[in-house]
Amino acid sequence: MSFDRTIFSEKVKSMQAYHVANSSGMIKLDAMELPYTLPEEMRAALGKILSLTSINRYPNPRSTSTIAKIKQVFSLPEACEVMLGNGSDELIQILLTAVAKSNAVVMSPVPSFVMYQQTAELLGMSFVGIDLQADFSLDENDFLQAIDKHQPAVIFLAYPNNPTGFLLDKAVVQRIVEAAPGLVVIDEAYTAYADDSAQDLLTQYQHVVLIRTLSKIGLAGIRLGYLVAQPDIVVQLNKARMPYNVNVLTQATTRFMLEQTAFLDDCVSKVLDEKAKLYEWLLACDKVTVFASQTNFLLLRVENATAVFECLRDNYRILVKNLHGYHPVLDNVLRITIGNEKENSALRHALKKILG
Amino acid sequence: MSFDRTIFSEKVKSMQAYHVANSSGMIKLDAMELPYTLPEEMRAALGKILSLTSINRYPNPRSTSTIAKIKQVFSLPEACEVMLGNGSDELIQILLTAVAKSNAVVMSPVPSFVMYQQTAELLGMSFVGIDLQADFSLDENDFLQAIDKHQPAVIFLAYPNNPTGFLLDKAVVQRIVEAAPGLVVIDEAYTAYADDSAQDLLTQYQHVVLIRTLSKIGLAGIRLGYLVAQPDIVVQLNKARMPYNVNVLTQATTRFMLEQTAFLDDCVSKVLDEKAKLYEWLLACDKVTVFASQTNFLLLRVENATAVFECLRDNYRILVKNLHGYHPVLDNVLRITIGNEKENSALRHALKKILG
Repeated sequence: MSFDRTIFSEKVKSMQAYHVANSSGMIKLDAMELPYTLPEEMRAALGKILSLTSINRYPNPRSTSTIAKIKQVFSLPEACEVMLGNGSDELIQILLTAVAKSNAVVMSPVPSFVMYQQTAELLGMSFVGIDLQADFSLDENDFLQAIDKHQPAVIFLAYPNNPTGFLLDKAVVQRIVEAAPGLVVIDEAYTAYADDSAQDLLTQYQHVVLIRTLSKIGLAGIRLGYLVAQPDIVVQLNKARMPYNVNVLTQATTRFMLEQTAFLDDCVSKVLDEKAKLYEWLLACDKVTVFASQTNFLLLRVENATAVFECLRDNYRILVKNLHGYHPVLDNVLRITIGNEKENSALRHALKKILG
Repeated sequence: MSFDRTIFSEKVKSMQAYHVANSSGMIKLDAMELPYTLPEEMRAALGKILSLTSINRYPNPRSTSTIAKIKQVFSLPEACEVMLGNGSDELIQILLTAVAKSNAVVMSPVPSFVMYQQTAELLGMSFVGIDLQADFSLDENDFLQAIDKHQPAVIFLAYPNNPTGFLLDKAVVQRIVEAAPGLVVIDEAYTAYADDSAQDLLTQYQHVVLIRTLSKIGLAGIRLGYLVAQPDIVVQLNKARMPYNVNVLTQATTRFMLEQTAFLDDCVSKVLDEKAKLYEWLLACDKVTVFASQTNFLLLRVENATAVFECLRDNYRILVKNLHGYHPVLDNVLRITIGNEKENSALRHALKKILG
């Protein structure tokens, strides 16, 4: 009956499972979800389509029609190939699995999306994080020197960056791409809220990979991420992808929702409007430093982030993300996802009471 | 513009992507899918439920309600924990990622489900396959000696086995479990068609892991697999799982369909009836050796499997799986998924013409 637990890798044993806070019954402003649900008619049309999906058959292993729709709607370069995943999470995993070798290094600015480091280490690779500066900017020389020193197999650049909400200078991105000896993955999860995209680099450089998700434009529940790159890269990546990874319901929903671009655009516009209102209000708050953001969240620094986080949660049933402790530049920083008008109003009301 | 492709691991570069035959417009008897779709009313009810799902919110990261339903419907041991994946494929990947260490060995009889070997090698582990005998049985001593020699971190036993359709002797399974120094994963993808289950071993041994899928009972398109094991194992495995891996639509469909047990059971019964009819008919064919099977497919040996496969495909638009070339015990063997009455009748008609 005894069982030797050393069977699990040291890395896994030392890891904590990704923590997701209990949000039941709360105003949920912690996970960059959109607050908007589908209008009645659209909802019924989607239900009808899903009811007609052949759930007894495996998905098309190449997801041909879904990919065609994505290429069209997002005007992706014809010369590039697309691969689908269960969110960016799976795309990151597939990508790192395909390049995993002992001594391979994965690099990114830190703080950034935690899955870059977590997945790299899970797969036995080394992660080198280059600290952002106090104003959330990247020291270009630092980063270029680190590329030279560590020769990373993969560099991740979140564009814009989560959790800081900043967009790197495009010229800096380009110089990083030119210095990189391996793949440069540009993660545009928040691109719908950003002033610029790096999509044009895809056709300029053979080693640039773009990843995106539908999660931040209102479809977090279906888990659809897509990766775009030159065909010879996607050929290799597809070998590390499980053949039927994205189910038929997610694919059918993706094709349907990408017909509803007016609705999706309207949701993004509403988020941007709400963000502008909240930003103005926070700017006027004495006890808050708020940072401009090219995403659907705002970062704010307060005197005691943990106290404010707990008070919002316990007294006002509002869940935000407490980033204090994640990285020195995030000391006493809260990340607040933009909710709907009512939710944001409840948040303002609560912050006013808490901060006095 | 030049890009150094050595960035991809040697293993990935040497791999072929998983090949899925083009089946458009064909009678599809190649992939162990069920031929039955939902009755009109059930389909509408499912559509309604899916239309009410909050696709703007991430799934519950612990999949609590879906797991509760699975535990109830399949009478899983209370003392065990369950983890969900996008099909057994992802469960195998999570499991091997959690134990991946250099020099770790993964073992299974061969031929068996190809993903055991493919995923192990993709993750840099060594795979040791123990050849089945010509009658598809496992030489127990061979296997036990190999365990002793290779000290595998993980043993996979498909119960029943794909592609042979055979069920190992339960006493042999038990002796393998007792000899195993690591995890023993019992893959019961086809358990709905089998005379026995190894579920009882879960509570007898701390190092037994059960994996199952809803794909072979008519729900291949939703990609829902589940893993059952002792809590201290599932705690470690959850760390190697992406937090939101199974989307909300798959989870809602799973909960709904597991309420329709009469329908699911009826589909399985129809497959078993159709299999019995096809088996009898094949037994009476001079030029065919058919093997008994505890799955929803039948294996048959013919004089020239490739010729029969191609003729079925090209002249009769019937797609089966040609296993010739996969392993010596599968020489000139075809694997035929049980279709509906009409499809099986078309198959019989075609085989009669082809085999004369």
